[in-house]
Amino acid sequence: MSKLRFNITMSLDGFVAGPNQSLENPLGEGGVRLHDWAFALEAWRKANGQDGGEVNASTSVVEESLANIGAYIMGRNMFGGGSGPWPDDPWNGWWGANPPYHVPVFVLTNHARQPLSMEGGTTFNFVTDGIESTLEQAKEAAGDKDVMLSGGANVAQQYLAAELIDEMELHVVPLFLRDGARLFDNLRNDPELEQVRSIEAPGVTHLKYRVVK
Amino acid sequence: MSKLRFNITMSLDGFVAGPNQSLENPLGEGGVRLHDWAFALEAWRKANGQDGGEVNASTSVVEESLANIGAYIMGRNMFGGGSGPWPDDPWNGWWGANPPYHVPVFVLTNHARQPLSMEGGTTFNFVTDGIESTLEQAKEAAGDKDVMLSGGANVAQQYLAAELIDEMELHVVPLFLRDGARLFDNLRNDPELEQVRSIEAPGVTHLKYRVVK
Repeated sequence: MSKLRFNITMSLDGFVAGPNQSLENPLGEGGVRLHDWAFALEAWRKANGQDGGEVNASTSVVEESLANIGAYIMGRNMFGGGSGPWPDDPWNGWWGANPPYHVPVFVLTNHARQPLSMEGGTTFNFVTDGIESTLEQAKEAAGDKDVMLSGGANVAQQYLAAELIDEMELHVVPLFLRDGARLFDNLRNDPELEQVRSIEAPGVTHLKYRVVK
Repeated sequence: MSKLRFNITMSLDGFVAGPNQSLENPLGEGGVRLHDWAFALEAWRKANGQDGGEVNASTSVVEESLANIGAYIMGRNMFGGGSGPWPDDPWNGWWGANPPYHVPVFVLTNHARQPLSMEGGTTFNFVTDGIESTLEQAKEAAGDKDVMLSGGANVAQQYLAAELIDEMELHVVPLFLRDGARLFDNLRNDPELEQVRSIEAPGVTHLKYRVVK
């Protein structure tokens, strides 16, 4: 059955972005360091149209995170649209002409916008009627494949609180951010988790959990 | 050289005790579940005078945490003394007649008390002049061996904030506590960490870090 999966990189003190996130600095102050482990990888670079990079114990984790995904869900900040109504001539997000998704992406927003078809099979769909409806539409688009929740923190918190996530992988990095977006704030309950596996890799540990329903 | 080491079990959302810690419930509401992985182990049970238990991937972690320790540091709550001045006939803490330490233990408190010698080599020393002095006394008692910081959260935060810890192991368990004592609150800076190793074990992942100085 199609699952809602969720992968995110978290500092040791629980933050997934630094303070003062903005259009200019979407990961917040100091937040970009969270992703050093991924930027170094051939598997990540290839998926994002870049050459070079390493092969190490994180490679299989990244490959697994890219496999069997039929649709993505993300918040508007992660798409790259700021807040408020879309301007008359809106830009097309952070992800360039050929975004690294290659399947339908459902962007949660309060402001309607026509779908945006990009090169390479990515279509951004803008959904204004909440997380449940977004998940339904994404699952329908994904067919037998899974839906991947990409973030950011606010959207992830909403899906966690609603207990709609089936599987979660945390990439825990040895950093303290001390402020910013804390992933596990605002939980309404404490869903039962089962540890699926942990993988040690250079500069990161990958912790995978299944939500018991 | 003698190191200050620190081991603690943390929920996935960063808590090391549940809410409403008290003399009756020192781990706070729901906090005892943090330690299920340890209670199940033969290595832990043996060190705490109990029979039975499992051998699994956590065994070597527990054995390592007990090895080469010449002294312990703990907060008064962890010793078991409540707060305020000691009563005229104070009890001797949570740990029974033969505590599982077998070396000098330095208890941080605001209230002086004579040292307390127990069976099996444990002596509780009550130190009132702060974390630096306590560490000096513990290192002197430990000789060539290491000093282990046992907790609780408040004392651990003080040592983390002062950057006096050399090595830290987090036993991360798949639980959400949502409230209580968060380990990484009140950091004053962001010490550089190096991931030493991670070990996957049933119901827990052991993450070990070295503080780069």
